[in-house]
Amino acid sequence: MLTLHSNMVFDSPSSDATAVEVQLADRSYTIFIQSDAQAKFASAAKQALGDVSHVMVITDEAVDKKWATGLADELQKIGVRVDKYAVPSGEPSKSVSQFETLLQWMLASGADRRSVVVAVGGGVIGDLAGFAAASFTRGIRFVQVPTSLLAMVDSSVGGKTGINLPTAKNMVGAFWQPSLVWIDTQVLSTLPERDFISGLGEVIKYGVIDDADFFEWLEANWQALINRENEAVCFAIARSCQSKANVVGEDERETSGRRAILNYGHTFAHAIEATAGYGTLMHGEAVAIGMQMAARLAIELELCGQQLLDRQTALLQNCGLPIVFDDANADAMLPVMKRDKKVAHGKLRFILPTKIGSVDLVGDVDESAVVDAIRKTI
Amino acid sequence: MLTLHSNMVFDSPSSDATAVEVQLADRSYTIFIQSDAQAKFASAAKQALGDVSHVMVITDEAVDKKWATGLADELQKIGVRVDKYAVPSGEPSKSVSQFETLLQWMLASGADRRSVVVAVGGGVIGDLAGFAAASFTRGIRFVQVPTSLLAMVDSSVGGKTGINLPTAKNMVGAFWQPSLVWIDTQVLSTLPERDFISGLGEVIKYGVIDDADFFEWLEANWQALINRENEAVCFAIARSCQSKANVVGEDERETSGRRAILNYGHTFAHAIEATAGYGTLMHGEAVAIGMQMAARLAIELELCGQQLLDRQTALLQNCGLPIVFDDANADAMLPVMKRDKKVAHGKLRFILPTKIGSVDLVGDVDESAVVDAIRKTI
Repeated sequence: MLTLHSNMVFDSPSSDATAVEVQLADRSYTIFIQSDAQAKFASAAKQALGDVSHVMVITDEAVDKKWATGLADELQKIGVRVDKYAVPSGEPSKSVSQFETLLQWMLASGADRRSVVVAVGGGVIGDLAGFAAASFTRGIRFVQVPTSLLAMVDSSVGGKTGINLPTAKNMVGAFWQPSLVWIDTQVLSTLPERDFISGLGEVIKYGVIDDADFFEWLEANWQALINRENEAVCFAIARSCQSKANVVGEDERETSGRRAILNYGHTFAHAIEATAGYGTLMHGEAVAIGMQMAARLAIELELCGQQLLDRQTALLQNCGLPIVFDDANADAMLPVMKRDKKVAHGKLRFILPTKIGSVDLVGDVDESAVVDAIRKTI
Repeated sequence: MLTLHSNMVFDSPSSDATAVEVQLADRSYTIFIQSDAQAKFASAAKQALGDVSHVMVITDEAVDKKWATGLADELQKIGVRVDKYAVPSGEPSKSVSQFETLLQWMLASGADRRSVVVAVGGGVIGDLAGFAAASFTRGIRFVQVPTSLLAMVDSSVGGKTGINLPTAKNMVGAFWQPSLVWIDTQVLSTLPERDFISGLGEVIKYGVIDDADFFEWLEANWQALINRENEAVCFAIARSCQSKANVVGEDERETSGRRAILNYGHTFAHAIEATAGYGTLMHGEAVAIGMQMAARLAIELELCGQQLLDRQTALLQNCGLPIVFDDANADAMLPVMKRDKKVAHGKLRFILPTKIGSVDLVGDVDESAVVDAIRKTI
């Protein structure tokens, strides 16, 4: 389901542009990964979109001047009419009321069915702007320009868009694929340290669930990665996007169960985030802890050996990610896990590793084993 | 693209259930048309949906007790957990805030990805509940149970769902196909006369755009129809749904231009509705007037002869529909028509008849011809 361009050389990372294709029939698109490529954006967008006369750049107040303005300028240079809207930073912007405000701005800016949304920001912007693109006149095209490592390797790829209800995250949305994902690692130069490290949580996840060779590469190259050496960063992003593109190409709408493997560590992570209060941990940090809990649960269920947990622990720790969470509260987490969107008829289901590079969906897991796995990760 | 069951006998309408299939690959579904069939609803729903353990009936305060409660009871009889929500009647319920309220109610009722929405009402309910179904956890299944003639022959079929922005109708939504459309003509017994007649505007439209035989049948049988004789009503609904299913099967997402033929009379009608103030005319009445304007424009552009207009005028008039609108204001209508969703780059485009049963999409129409067509319909 995945095609790699010849300039993507996995065992010897290259600084050239890498293209990963997401194969979804008439909804296929390319993820470009490169550095310092702002000047190439407009022509790449034009090539991906065909006709484009009106673009709405939707961005985050925090990255507006740093990154969105430059991209808007590039589009204007090739004769595109560009409007720009900056959403307040942070998760509260994924609200129904911000969604309505954004749609009214789109209408006022003269958008029609041929207009294109360009989302420049982290996961909040991609999710919100993507759902607005999915819904405006029942769907217009959009481009993802992720500016956080987490968004680059996870939320910008695969077409999940959405907003929150006051009591439930990502409860409202659409599967709506972008026409192009444009990753410029240059933007990571202004990303705070903790955000960058958090993104590595999802990167390591891909090694565990799908790609043993990549896991080994991470074990050998974590130092280059946390030093943000560009070739290593580009390689890790490309390899992560490759795994995600593979899975999404096989199960776009999460119907076959295949796409669920991306949720390794996430059932625990969502419960940690909900019970610890959103904001206490960054998402990638919660995922790292969740992966530790999931690996312990797998050992308990005799699906894998201790060595897997040891390697995962070492890699997470080397990258500066948390491997335990002192405040984890099993009694509070359990009811949250039972309300998870992926739950079937109230039964606990987990994505659990069998070896590095391979996971299984395990249904009807005993509660006491889950509680044990949580308590061992405190 | 359309299959008719053997019990659908067009030249001799039957009181038996008629099934019209909408062919959309893995999104195909059946429209059942019959009378007094409430007791059969639960088993039909089960057959169409497969597993169904939780249903959310979303209805209109005006039809809740009359029709929705009975259907909910039938579902409960077969062991389905049913929750019910009645939305205030009228177009204002298609707001973003009502959408959010509905989604929060769905979450509170314990809905998950296997839950099913059953929309019992007219176009407002189908559009709102359909978009809520499309968006809740990025899409759950839904069933349309239209209770107005207009919804039966138009909005319940074809997957267009959506809500309004304060300044623009149907600007936000999704293409989301139902799993089943359940039409029970018994519910028309409580439909006010003006609503019923309004629905006939859309029925006659299908004759003009797609089905000359049906138009002739209408010319011969309009009296039975306005008397609400059940066989005639079932036949007219089935034939209308057949036309719509054909068109939707060929162009689900309005991308090829084929689906645009359904908008015969509608570019004028939307402008009439917007400038006359929503509520002055019912939608089918505005469509009838819009069809008169479109036929006059077609004559002006030498696409068809006077006879088409004469036959259309006579049929509309026999059915009790308006054929002129005294307050039509061409100067006010023109700017609205230029903002229409179907406009390409600000150019006026119309669906215009060439003969009874056949229409063309005509682009770049001269404004003065449009103004003439409006002024002749006052």
